[in-house]
Amino acid sequence: MAPAGGPRVKKGILERLNSGEVVVGDGGFLFSLEKRGFVKAGLWTPEAVVEYPSAVRQLHTEFLRAGADVLQTFTFSAAEDRMENKYFEHVEEAVWAVEVLREVGAPVAVTMCIGPEGDMHGVTPGECAVRLSRAGANIIGVNCRFGPWTSLQTMKLMKEGLRDAGLQAHLMVQCLGFHTPDCGKGGFVDLPEYPFGLEPRVATRWDIQKYAREAYNLGVRYIGGCCGFEPYHIRAIAEELAPERGFLPPASEKHGSWGSGLDMHTKPWIRARARREYWETLLPASGRPFCPSLSKPDA
Amino acid sequence: MAPAGGPRVKKGILERLNSGEVVVGDGGFLFSLEKRGFVKAGLWTPEAVVEYPSAVRQLHTEFLRAGADVLQTFTFSAAEDRMENKYFEHVEEAVWAVEVLREVGAPVAVTMCIGPEGDMHGVTPGECAVRLSRAGANIIGVNCRFGPWTSLQTMKLMKEGLRDAGLQAHLMVQCLGFHTPDCGKGGFVDLPEYPFGLEPRVATRWDIQKYAREAYNLGVRYIGGCCGFEPYHIRAIAEELAPERGFLPPASEKHGSWGSGLDMHTKPWIRARARREYWETLLPASGRPFCPSLSKPDA
Amino acid sequence: MAPAGGPRVKKGILERLNSGEVVVGDGGFLFSLEKRGFVKAGLWTPEAVVEYPSAVRQLHTEFLRAGADVLQTFTFSAAEDRMENKYFEHVEEAVWAVEVLREVGAPVAVTMCIGPEGDMHGVTPGECAVRLSRAGANIIGVNCRFGPWTSLQTMKLMKEGLRDAGLQAHLMVQCLGFHTPDCGKGGFVDLPEYPFGLEPRVATRWDIQKYAREAYNLGVRYIGGCCGFEPYHIRAIAEELAPERGFLPPASEKHGSWGSGLDMHTKPWIRARARREYWETLLPASGRPFCPSLSKPDA
Amino acid sequence: MAPAGGPRVKKGILERLNSGEVVVGDGGFLFSLEKRGFVKAGLWTPEAVVEYPSAVRQLHTEFLRAGADVLQTFTFSAAEDRMENKYFEHVEEAVWAVEVLREVGAPVAVTMCIGPEGDMHGVTPGECAVRLSRAGANIIGVNCRFGPWTSLQTMKLMKEGLRDAGLQAHLMVQCLGFHTPDCGKGGFVDLPEYPFGLEPRVATRWDIQKYAREAYNLGVRYIGGCCGFEPYHIRAIAEELAPERGFLPPASEKHGSWGSGLDMHTKPWIRARARREYWETLLPASGRPFCPSLSKPDA
Repeated sequence: MAPAGGPRVKKGILERLNSGEVVVGDGGFLFSLEKRGFVKAGLWTPEAVVEYPSAVRQLHTEFLRAGADVLQTFTFSAAEDRMENKYFEHVEEAVWAVEVLREVGAPVAVTMCIGPEGDMHGVTPGECAVRLSRAGANIIGVNCRFGPWTSLQTMKLMKEGLRDAGLQAHLMVQCLGFHTPDCGKGGFVDLPEYPFGLEPRVATRWDIQKYAREAYNLGVRYIGGCCGFEPYHIRAIAEELAPERGFLPPASEKHGSWGSGLDMHTKPWIRARARREYWETLLPASGRPFCPSLSKPDA
Repeated sequence: MAPAGGPRVKKGILERLNSGEVVVGDGGFLFSLEKRGFVKAGLWTPEAVVEYPSAVRQLHTEFLRAGADVLQTFTFSAAEDRMENKYFEHVEEAVWAVEVLREVGAPVAVTMCIGPEGDMHGVTPGECAVRLSRAGANIIGVNCRFGPWTSLQTMKLMKEGLRDAGLQAHLMVQCLGFHTPDCGKGGFVDLPEYPFGLEPRVATRWDIQKYAREAYNLGVRYIGGCCGFEPYHIRAIAEELAPERGFLPPASEKHGSWGSGLDMHTKPWIRARARREYWETLLPASGRPFCPSLSKPDA
Repeated sequence: MAPAGGPRVKKGILERLNSGEVVVGDGGFLFSLEKRGFVKAGLWTPEAVVEYPSAVRQLHTEFLRAGADVLQTFTFSAAEDRMENKYFEHVEEAVWAVEVLREVGAPVAVTMCIGPEGDMHGVTPGECAVRLSRAGANIIGVNCRFGPWTSLQTMKLMKEGLRDAGLQAHLMVQCLGFHTPDCGKGGFVDLPEYPFGLEPRVATRWDIQKYAREAYNLGVRYIGGCCGFEPYHIRAIAEELAPERGFLPPASEKHGSWGSGLDMHTKPWIRARARREYWETLLPASGRPFCPSLSKPDA
Repeated sequence: MAPAGGPRVKKGILERLNSGEVVVGDGGFLFSLEKRGFVKAGLWTPEAVVEYPSAVRQLHTEFLRAGADVLQTFTFSAAEDRMENKYFEHVEEAVWAVEVLREVGAPVAVTMCIGPEGDMHGVTPGECAVRLSRAGANIIGVNCRFGPWTSLQTMKLMKEGLRDAGLQAHLMVQCLGFHTPDCGKGGFVDLPEYPFGLEPRVATRWDIQKYAREAYNLGVRYIGGCCGFEPYHIRAIAEELAPERGFLPPASEKHGSWGSGLDMHTKPWIRARARREYWETLLPASGRPFCPSLSKPDA
C-alpha cells in the first residue's frame, strides 16, 4: 500500500462515521509543545498559538502527515462539527455542554476524562454515556487522563451502557500516550510522576498499534490520542488501520512497517528484529532497576 | 535570573573552552525527526535536510531556544572549528580523523562512541584519550551509544588516562537520552529494545540536570546530548548550569525551575510537587509491571 | 512484655472468640515440609505424618513456639471444635460441609479458598458468607490461594455481606505467605510461578505484621496462614497482636521486635536498621532485574 | 536413577576430591534456624546447639536427606579434615588460619567471604587464591556474603589466578541462597534488605541447579550453600549433579525432577508446567510492583 494521504474530498466527521469510515484523531499539543519549549507545564495555557505560530503549525503538519483526519487546536471549533473534549470530570458539565452545542444545530461530539470507575461523583461510564446520548450527543467517548488499556476498559463500559439502554452513538477514544494501570478515579494527574517524570510510561508505537486494533474491534471508529501522543503514535494508529482505511499516511514513507526498515542493518542480530512478531511480543525494559513498576496515586 | 539567551559575541568553541566557559551542545536530530515523521529508522539517513528543511529548521530553533551554543547538522562543519563525532568504534579511525582535521589547521574536537569497556578492540577509554590527545585533538570525549551514567563513567576513565599520561585536553560528553545500565561494549544498538522500544528508558529532565552537574564536577565543559535528547533535555543542561553560565536559555520562559510552575495548581497534592527535593528524589514508575527492568544485550 | 506462651487453661476456639480473644492460627504444612524434603509437590499428599512423624512433630513444635493457638494437622479434627478449611472453590460444597458438621453438634468453622471475585461460579464473597452463616457456621472466612492483601479484601467483602444481611459470625483468615496481586479467580495455582518459582513472592515478617494488624482492625479474630507461611510468619502475627493478647510467643526470645536485635552490630549502618520505621517503610528489592514484577495468570 | 543416598564407605573430603568425586556441601544453619525460631538474628550465636538440640538435629537430617556429603555444625571440626569457612574478609586472616591448621598436619580447606572485587583491602580473588595455596591450603574457595552468580564470578577469578601462577588446588563454593547482583565489596550485609527483608531475593531450586552446573563446568568440585540455603536447595545441587555422582539423594523420593510431579494435576495448564524447559526459562515475578528490582548498598 503506497502512502497516499487519504481521500481528498472533505467531509464532516459525522458524515464520515455514518458512512462507516475510521476517523484518526490527532495527538496532544500541550505536552508535545512543552517538550519543545513553547508551553509551560502547570497552567498549560495555549498562548503559543499567538506567540510561536510556526511551532504550532509545524506540529499540526506533523500530525497531518502522520495520518490525522482532524486537527484540534487549543480552541478547536470546526466549521460544521462541534466537538468538545474539555476536561469534563462530572457528567453534569458534559451534558450541559452537549445541550449548548445542540442549540447551534450542528453534530455534537463529546468526550469525558473518566476511567472505569466513572466520574468524580461515581457516575459509571455506562450511565455517563447514556445521559450524554439522551442529551443529544452524536459521538461519545473519553479523552485524556488515562492510558490506552484503561481507556479501552472505560469505552467497553460505555458501550455496554448504551447497548443495555437500547441507545446508539458513535464511539470515540483519545487516550494518553502514557501507561497508567495504577491510577485511580482522578487519572494520571494524581500519579506522583505527573507531569515531569512520566517518561518511563510513554507508550511504544507497538502499544499504540495494539490499542488502535482493540479500539476498532470494540466498535470505536474515532481513534486518536491526547497528552503524550507524539506524531509517530498517530502514525501507528493510521498504519494499524490502513487495511480498513485503504491507505497509509504520508509519514509512512519514513517508516518500515513492523520494523522492516532494519532489514538492511549490518549487524545480523539487529536485522533479526525486522519482523512483526519480534516487536509484538517485546517486553521493553526500563533501564531503571532502582525504580518500581507501579506507583500509588496521591489522591 | 532572567532568560537572556547568552553572550552576544560569537566566539569559537575552543576559544570559549579556553576561557573557562561551559559550552552546551545540542540533542539528537535523527531520533527526534524520526518521531516527527521525517527520518527513517534503520538507515538513519539525513535526506530530511533537503526534503523537509522547515522541519529541520524548526528543530534547530528549538535546540537553540533550549540553550544550545552549538548546532550540529547532519553534516556539520563550522567555519573555524572542526568537530567529529562520527560513530568511531575503533580508536584507529578516530586518530586518523584527528590527523586529517589537523592538516586543515583548525582546532579539533573528536568524540568516540565507546563505553567504560573501551573500543571494539578493547582499547580502554584512558588509552583512547591519550592517543587522541597525542594525535593532536584539542577536545576529547564520547557521544551516543551509552546513557548518562555510563557515559560519565567513560569520561572519568578518559580523564584519568590523560592525567596519568601528564596530558591535558578539553573534555566533551554527549550521551544518549536513554538509560542503558545493561548494555555491553556495543552500546544501545545491541539492546533488544533498539530502536523501537526504548521509550521506558527515556531520561527525565531531572536525570539530565544531574548528568549536567556531574559532568561539570568531573571537569567536562562541553556538555550536550545525542539520540533521544529532545529540546527539553538540552534546556535541563542549560538550567542546571545557569549559575555557572550566568544566564538562562530563552526556553526557560516556559519552564518553572524544579517544577515551580505547579505552585498554582488547584489540587494541593500537585502543588506539593513544586519543589526541588520532590523531583530530585522521585523514583519514577514505568507503569509496566509485566516488563523487566533490565535486558540482556543481543551481542 | 516477657515471652510467656500464653494462657494455660485450654479453651475451645469458639469459647475464646466469644470472649473476645484473638486466636492465632498456624502456617502451611505442605509447602514447609516440601522444602524440607518430606512432601511431594503436585499431589501434596500427607503421608509424611506416618513416614516422617518426627519431621512433622518438629514443625508442629515450631508453630507452637511461634505463637499458634491451634494446630491443624493434615487431617485435623479437634475434640470439641469442627474446623474445615478444605479447598472449597464452590459455596455449595462449603455449605454442605457446614451442614454435615452441624449434625455432630459441635461449633463449626469453615473457610473457602476464594478471592474478591468470589467462588468459581461467581458467587460473591458477601453472598458466600451469608449462605455459610445461614447454614449454621460459627466461624467464617478464607484460607489459601490468595496473598495477604487480596485475602483481606475478600474478608472485607464477606464482612459487608454479613452486615448487610443483618448476620453475625466470627471471622477467620489464613492467607498465603506469597504476594499475589496479579491472580484471578483461581488464585495462585494459575500463576506461572506455581508451585516451584514462588520465592520472589514470599512475604517478609513485616508484611505479615501489617496483615495481622489490618485483619484485626477489620474485626477478624482468628488470624493465621496457609501455604508459604513459615514459623517466623506466625510469630509475626503473635508479636503484632501481643498488646491485645497480653503476651509474646516463646519464639520471641529469639527475635528482637522490629529489628532491635541489630542494635549491637559492629557496622553503624546496620545498627541504623534496628528500628520500626526502617522495616515498616522498606521496599525490598528482588535482586532480579531481568524478571517482571507481575505475571499473567494461565487461566 | 533410584534415590540411594550415595556411597557407603566413608572417605575424607580430600580423598574424595582427589579421586574426582563431587562433594555436596550443606546449607546455612543460622538463617534456617532463625526462621524456625531458634536463633536470634544480629548476633547469630549458635547456642541453639545446646538449647534446642533436636531442632538442630532435625535440620542436619534434612540436609543429609537432601544429599549433603558434609555437615558443618556451628563449630565444625571433623576427625581427619580441617575446614575453615569463617567469615574471612582479609586474606591475611585466612592465610594465618591455613598456617595454624597446617601445623595439625591434616588436609586444609579454607573459604573466604569475598566477591569479584576482592577482599576488604582490595586484594583480588586471584591473588587471594594464590596466597592461600602457597600457604598450604588444599581446598580453596568462597562462602557466604554473595549470591550464586556473583560467587561463581569470584571462583572464576580465583581459578584464573591459580592457573596464571602455575598452582593447583581443589575449588569450593558455598554461596548465599539470595540473589545479590547489586552488592559491593561488603556483600549482602550492606544491602538495605539485610537481614529481615531478603525474601524477594531467595533463589529458586532452578536457579540452584543452574548454579551447580556452572560451578561444575568451572571445575569446582565442592559445591554447597550458605545463608538462605534450605534443604531443597541442597537437593537441587544433588539432583543436577546426579549424573556425575551416579545417584540421587534420599529426598528425591519426594521430588519429581524438573517439575514432573505436576503431570497428574487436574488442570491442564498446570500439567503443562511438568517439563524442564518451562522451569529453566521462567522469569518469576515478584508480586511486588511497588518495589525496585535492585538496591543501593549502604556502604
